Amino acid sequence: MPFTLSTALDYQVLAPTTMILNIEPMATAQQVLKSSELQVTPFVPAALHQGFAGANAYRRLVLPPGNYRISYNGVVETRPHRADPAAVDEVPIAELPFAALPYLYPSRYCQSDRLARFAIREFGGVARGHERVTAICNWVYTHVDYLTGASDAQTSAYDTFSLRAGVCRDFAHLSITFCRALGIPARFVAAYAYDMRPQDFHAVFEAYLGDRWYIFDATRSAPLDGLVRVAVGHDAADTAFATYFGQATMTGMSIAVSADDFPGGAWTTEAVSHSAD
Amino acid sequence: MPFTLSTALDYQVLAPTTMILNIEPMATAQQVLKSSELQVTPFVPAALHQGFAGANAYRRLVLPPGNYRISYNGVVETRPHRADPAAVDEVPIAELPFAALPYLYPSRYCQSDRLARFAIREFGGVARGHERVTAICNWVYTHVDYLTGASDAQTSAYDTFSLRAGVCRDFAHLSITFCRALGIPARFVAAYAYDMRPQDFHAVFEAYLGDRWYIFDATRSAPLDGLVRVAVGHDAADTAFATYFGQATMTGMSIAVSADDFPGGAWTTEAVSHSAD
Amino acid sequence: MPFTLSTALDYQVLAPTTMILNIEPMATAQQVLKSSELQVTPFVPAALHQGFAGANAYRRLVLPPGNYRISYNGVVETRPHRADPAAVDEVPIAELPFAALPYLYPSRYCQSDRLARFAIREFGGVARGHERVTAICNWVYTHVDYLTGASDAQTSAYDTFSLRAGVCRDFAHLSITFCRALGIPARFVAAYAYDMRPQDFHAVFEAYLGDRWYIFDATRSAPLDGLVRVAVGHDAADTAFATYFGQATMTGMSIAVSADDFPGGAWTTEAVSHSAD
Amino acid sequence: MPFTLSTALDYQVLAPTTMILNIEPMATAQQVLKSSELQVTPFVPAALHQGFAGANAYRRLVLPPGNYRISYNGVVETRPHRADPAAVDEVPIAELPFAALPYLYPSRYCQSDRLARFAIREFGGVARGHERVTAICNWVYTHVDYLTGASDAQTSAYDTFSLRAGVCRDFAHLSITFCRALGIPARFVAAYAYDMRPQDFHAVFEAYLGDRWYIFDATRSAPLDGLVRVAVGHDAADTAFATYFGQATMTGMSIAVSADDFPGGAWTTEAVSHSAD
Repeated sequence: MPFTLSTALDYQVLAPTTMILNIEPMATAQQVLKSSELQVTPFVPAALHQGFAGANAYRRLVLPPGNYRISYNGVVETRPHRADPAAVDEVPIAELPFAALPYLYPSRYCQSDRLARFAIREFGGVARGHERVTAICNWVYTHVDYLTGASDAQTSAYDTFSLRAGVCRDFAHLSITFCRALGIPARFVAAYAYDMRPQDFHAVFEAYLGDRWYIFDATRSAPLDGLVRVAVGHDAADTAFATYFGQATMTGMSIAVSADDFPGGAWTTEAVSHSAD
Repeated sequence: MPFTLSTALDYQVLAPTTMILNIEPMATAQQVLKSSELQVTPFVPAALHQGFAGANAYRRLVLPPGNYRISYNGVVETRPHRADPAAVDEVPIAELPFAALPYLYPSRYCQSDRLARFAIREFGGVARGHERVTAICNWVYTHVDYLTGASDAQTSAYDTFSLRAGVCRDFAHLSITFCRALGIPARFVAAYAYDMRPQDFHAVFEAYLGDRWYIFDATRSAPLDGLVRVAVGHDAADTAFATYFGQATMTGMSIAVSADDFPGGAWTTEAVSHSAD
Repeated sequence: MPFTLSTALDYQVLAPTTMILNIEPMATAQQVLKSSELQVTPFVPAALHQGFAGANAYRRLVLPPGNYRISYNGVVETRPHRADPAAVDEVPIAELPFAALPYLYPSRYCQSDRLARFAIREFGGVARGHERVTAICNWVYTHVDYLTGASDAQTSAYDTFSLRAGVCRDFAHLSITFCRALGIPARFVAAYAYDMRPQDFHAVFEAYLGDRWYIFDATRSAPLDGLVRVAVGHDAADTAFATYFGQATMTGMSIAVSADDFPGGAWTTEAVSHSAD
Repeated sequence: MPFTLSTALDYQVLAPTTMILNIEPMATAQQVLKSSELQVTPFVPAALHQGFAGANAYRRLVLPPGNYRISYNGVVETRPHRADPAAVDEVPIAELPFAALPYLYPSRYCQSDRLARFAIREFGGVARGHERVTAICNWVYTHVDYLTGASDAQTSAYDTFSLRAGVCRDFAHLSITFCRALGIPARFVAAYAYDMRPQDFHAVFEAYLGDRWYIFDATRSAPLDGLVRVAVGHDAADTAFATYFGQATMTGMSIAVSADDFPGGAWTTEAVSHSAD
């Protein structure tokens, strides 16, 4: 399915600032970039840093003081893999691919070590597999209020568990935390999302099940088929769309995601994967 | 300098357990393994997982119930790089190698976002470079009591900052946190240490300065020249010598590190690097 | 009902220590002390400090180095008030006695401000009155494991909510926290408890309902009729049986609570009050 | 010294609300109310609740929906006690008045148990007495930024210690915490303050030294002689100028404190007491 993306970020830079930018979709077999253009106005070089093909596409911008517009335009064809949820099992630790293991460990915003007893009490008895992760999403959706302003950049899953309010990033962190506590590798996904209102960067997560990473969205705010993946990581700490060192302020942001002929699409109860790794 | 290592870990496994083991020294240009042998008795396969040559050498063991001895014996030749501390500068974010960037972000045990104001107040005025990281080590050494039992597996740098007591792992976490808050990439290092009393696995840290990772030990409990690196990572979450999923108890541990002719060696005020990356 | 109490505490005092002791039952209209004797061996004065008749009976002991036995022996006649739980209502803030208001505020171990959203989500829809507090006790009993060693002197209700394990003091703190978050005054009660195994000091709580303080025990470890109240307070911070300033170690403790003819007695679903205030 | 106070608080009440108001100065031998008038417009009864003469003057207002102005006007004559700081000693726990003991315990916002090691390391060696509390104030003033918006109603001393930023309430909480950790009773004081800019309710603290409570202000934002005490308590949890249960919004606030002939007045290095208890 082809999506047309159009993003504009405006920054006022007050002192020399280095920015690590990460707003371009990942280019993978399941997400083909038909066109993709990043522009910084006025021009500054935007060196690409990518660990390997298909990985997060980081750009490093060295910005003297001034006003900047960063715009991205692209057309992305996604080819999600779909499966029967009942047939998607959890993978014993003994059989997990090595690359999935780091996503079992606690991270800054996903302190799975501190919520292990709860996770096991609440989800330990649920049938293992895709439906257990769905049960986690349902729990988070039911027990946490989606409330803009209830959390900030320091809010972690441990806070959200007690506070019971947050935004998409908090929903993803808490879901990831429960997965890891149960021995299911889970990672944070920054994404564009079709049909999300208001349109914004979105945060969802992936759990490693069967033979791949399946995607989940505990907020139920966008169809899974309408996601375009930008970055994967341990949590929001390493997947921010912009991290800057210096002194800068965002003065504007607009995001548009359109599709000609979006056929509806799967929600949380279906098994959808956007990743073949 | 050649070190002879001899480690034995005894486990009682009560239910089927998968163990991720990480006790073999890294093999790098600066740390040559003359001999290296891991044995599990009774025998079970110990599949090696390594992201790339020179990376942490993880072994995955699938252990049925029973009693096991895991022993490692090796001879390692280390070739530390030494520099004049005064000549080792910090690197602007704009010029850092891409691979160092992930070590600027907060992690499970190193919440640099939460201690940024303190770090900048306390160390912001110190001359930049190797000596600033030394100042951090000195601060941690002076303000935190080395006290076995004061911390546990959930203790983070944020806790240690208030509690003011901990062990080597806590000293490393707090030092790393301050470095990251100042824009200096820093990572956790699990190591064997010559002349450490009592002999145990040690935790130190590396900061990226000049053109490489320099090693630091805020505990001052072992000479920097006597370190043999086992693993690097964000923090203790991804560098444990053993992580197990199942039900197992460690029933014994012994570690020996010997050297024929150890010439004394550098302590924290010197600039020593064990890593060429 | 008459209870015979016999308590012995042994301390080794290593440096001059001032101890605030609080192990004698409160003397109220509903709890008559037939006999009551505190002894310190070797003898030191034990000045009584009591805010008013019926209040906690604090003793201050100034102890030079040495070994001490503190023993208490008493016979207490309790006259609990019983009511039909369905007839015990909550009291609007507008009508609460002034003396109950302080028990609406958050305290060291009962951070009701931080768990308010959860409390309202979980218990907001439960019928108001004695049964709502019973619902709180049932929730705590069901969702928290009674596990010795899972908590320590710094553990608060906020921790217990996430950790999901604790002892009687933690159960009381969490229950109190939920009550306060709902606008129900609640206070901590240190008590002796008949038929508790193993015999120890017990911690329960009281909620102000109808025209008095009703007692609750979320641990279900002793009958409510078998409680002898020692101290009430905001939380464990001001109701410890012994607080000491100096250097001392408890070397032994024994507690015995006996009754000639205990008729069974009420558990958590009944409305029992040990306090006429 | 006579001060003229004029306070106006405007509230919009959206649903029936019970308010506990505490804005009238305490009437004590050292603080004589020449005139004192509280008005609520439109009129509602404002029942006075006071534990004892001289204690905090709480008013309970039961407010139907509507708009209210609460105004207070008073003339207060203060007679602060002054002493030579060098002659004001700390009091051994063994000799403290019983009424001061509760202010040794940790409370919601002053977790003295969690910062004890730091307090003892930092202030343990300072000469005991008034100057040690002054040293605490100096430390807080020097190490914490006064920064509006850096903290909120849930921020505690434990947070402020790490965050290193806050407002007067946070400065008081942290100072109190250190005092208690050192065995010095300390309590929170809500006050009017002459010559404070911008004019607002102020928060300071008192430590029990010598034979009375001496007042301290770690923010250095108003002269100690210009303080008019409104409430004392464990911390901000029980000394708020208004606590409300229901649904209300403050829509306006003005405070004026004037004096005909204020002679300058003592700052933090002097020993001033506003309390004879």
